[in-house]
Amino acid sequence: MSEYVNVALDAMGGDNAPAEIVKGAVNAVNDNGNVKVYLVGDHDAVEAELKKYTYPKDRIETVDSTEVIGMDEAPVMAIRKKRDSSLVKALNLVKEGKCDAFVSAGSTGAVLAGGQLLVGRIRGVERPPLAPLIPHANGVSLLVDCGANVDARPSHLVQFAKMGSAYMKYAMGINNPRVALLNIGVEEEKGNALVKETYPLLKNCTDINFIGSIEAREIPMGGADVIVCEAFAGNVALKMYEGVGKVFLSKIKGALMKNLKTKIGALLIKSSLKETLKAFDATQYGGAPLLGLKGLVVKTHGSATAGEVRNSIIQCITFKEQDVNGKIKQYLDLDSDIN
Amino acid sequence: MSEYVNVALDAMGGDNAPAEIVKGAVNAVNDNGNVKVYLVGDHDAVEAELKKYTYPKDRIETVDSTEVIGMDEAPVMAIRKKRDSSLVKALNLVKEGKCDAFVSAGSTGAVLAGGQLLVGRIRGVERPPLAPLIPHANGVSLLVDCGANVDARPSHLVQFAKMGSAYMKYAMGINNPRVALLNIGVEEEKGNALVKETYPLLKNCTDINFIGSIEAREIPMGGADVIVCEAFAGNVALKMYEGVGKVFLSKIKGALMKNLKTKIGALLIKSSLKETLKAFDATQYGGAPLLGLKGLVVKTHGSATAGEVRNSIIQCITFKEQDVNGKIKQYLDLDSDIN
Repeated sequence: MSEYVNVALDAMGGDNAPAEIVKGAVNAVNDNGNVKVYLVGDHDAVEAELKKYTYPKDRIETVDSTEVIGMDEAPVMAIRKKRDSSLVKALNLVKEGKCDAFVSAGSTGAVLAGGQLLVGRIRGVERPPLAPLIPHANGVSLLVDCGANVDARPSHLVQFAKMGSAYMKYAMGINNPRVALLNIGVEEEKGNALVKETYPLLKNCTDINFIGSIEAREIPMGGADVIVCEAFAGNVALKMYEGVGKVFLSKIKGALMKNLKTKIGALLIKSSLKETLKAFDATQYGGAPLLGLKGLVVKTHGSATAGEVRNSIIQCITFKEQDVNGKIKQYLDLDSDIN
Repeated sequence: MSEYVNVALDAMGGDNAPAEIVKGAVNAVNDNGNVKVYLVGDHDAVEAELKKYTYPKDRIETVDSTEVIGMDEAPVMAIRKKRDSSLVKALNLVKEGKCDAFVSAGSTGAVLAGGQLLVGRIRGVERPPLAPLIPHANGVSLLVDCGANVDARPSHLVQFAKMGSAYMKYAMGINNPRVALLNIGVEEEKGNALVKETYPLLKNCTDINFIGSIEAREIPMGGADVIVCEAFAGNVALKMYEGVGKVFLSKIKGALMKNLKTKIGALLIKSSLKETLKAFDATQYGGAPLLGLKGLVVKTHGSATAGEVRNSIIQCITFKEQDVNGKIKQYLDLDSDIN
């Protein structure tokens, strides 16, 4: 193994592959001297893109693959059948220990299934959650789980809380992260059966900073650092967040472009507005980690462009350097009854 | 019974009671000649507010009550114990047939419990859902259920779809409303156990326009007219919608007020922006109806001011005049296996 953090990058996944994926890899190695990227994809297509850029040649290596897993393929089947796909070959680099982390903008289902089947869970982790970072008024929170495990059990949610705490503390540098349970009211007796069973378990965890229930309304206001939920509710929360943001922005843009007067007004507020809205740009933080696996598996948006891909690669460096997986193991071992 | 639509209004519920509630009642009767409001609350407080306004005296009647149900009281207990509360007395006016509808900005839990215990369900309705209207890019959708029934069963969701269709068609005038199931992906095999069981049932309903699954992201874009979900997910969706909207607006306001240049820009775009954002103001549609009860029960926001209270009262007129409850019965009877 080299002294670098080695990242296996699925060059063929996502709407903008391979052009933006390759560009993101180039930007990452140019911006950070500690990372090496293994670009897995169609040799000719990847090389054609790479030729456009200047970068340290020893820090991008290409790995040829002949297949691509589509967005609409049944995940487990695709992972099993398409052994020569960019996604499977890149994940295998992590499995074999050649890479520390994997990044893909491809099918979420295939990344989740492949991560579990090929990279595998840390022993004692019941369910690995997908945990995107979502920006709020004054920073960023982690939403665990957001799509990996629907119909989760209380013990899963307890592990999510611990893994999320480890991630926010060590990967994001937030001291004593506030953990809250996503609920439809803040009183302890509120909620569905899962939440009512989970609440007292979290309350009894001495190794996390559990602050109680949180309503979805408080998430964009920064009401907690780690928001624990099963995947269905988490996915609804995440996608509503994205959808409202998108519609609001497009409507505001329309209002600014309405006539000459508003266009002049728009010029005057443009830079201030841009700066404000930048804080809500989730892509600055990279992709969503799938926590609890033996290596780091990161899912970026299917629509990711070079900037998000670059940030997702940089994210892997902190994860490795801070030994977040080691910390996750510590957090889970502290409470022996759930292992 | 008079020729009016009679609305029982909880004058003591909500953050701005009784002043804004009374004002809303006055505005409603002044704006619409077909409604009579029964203002239930503390006699002196209500009369003191009423004195401030001019209105047709025969269309506002006061009903004295001596108790108030607080926002943090256990709902069922409060309904049973506080017989002389404004909420219970107003609901009883519907129960006794003196009023057609009930409106309150008070405790959601108490409105839901009181609606079921006092007004009662239409025979055959398994669970009455709380169904707020949420504005989208080009109109408005109904989100059923949003907080009344967590851990609902598939048969409940089928009824939600039918009641929601009746409401959108007859109360809101949307022809052949598109019904979608809230899910974490659009493919039929996606979802949790509840959604997977419910999907084929909805697909088999010939009396509604079922268009399949919808992701939360598509809701603000107007992807469906009726969005069916159990209450936990619906509540998360609704509150995230409200929270993101609130934070975005406050951040944008901050960006506009940053310096002299942006303040001048803000003046130029103000009216256009206001007009655009008005479309996203849920209060223009009134409150959230609790569907499937023998009378109409409407819950408005706890923070409601006169405008929203007025709109909630006006909403009751269409409901009565279009005989939405009669239509709900028709929709549910059509499919005899669920009754």
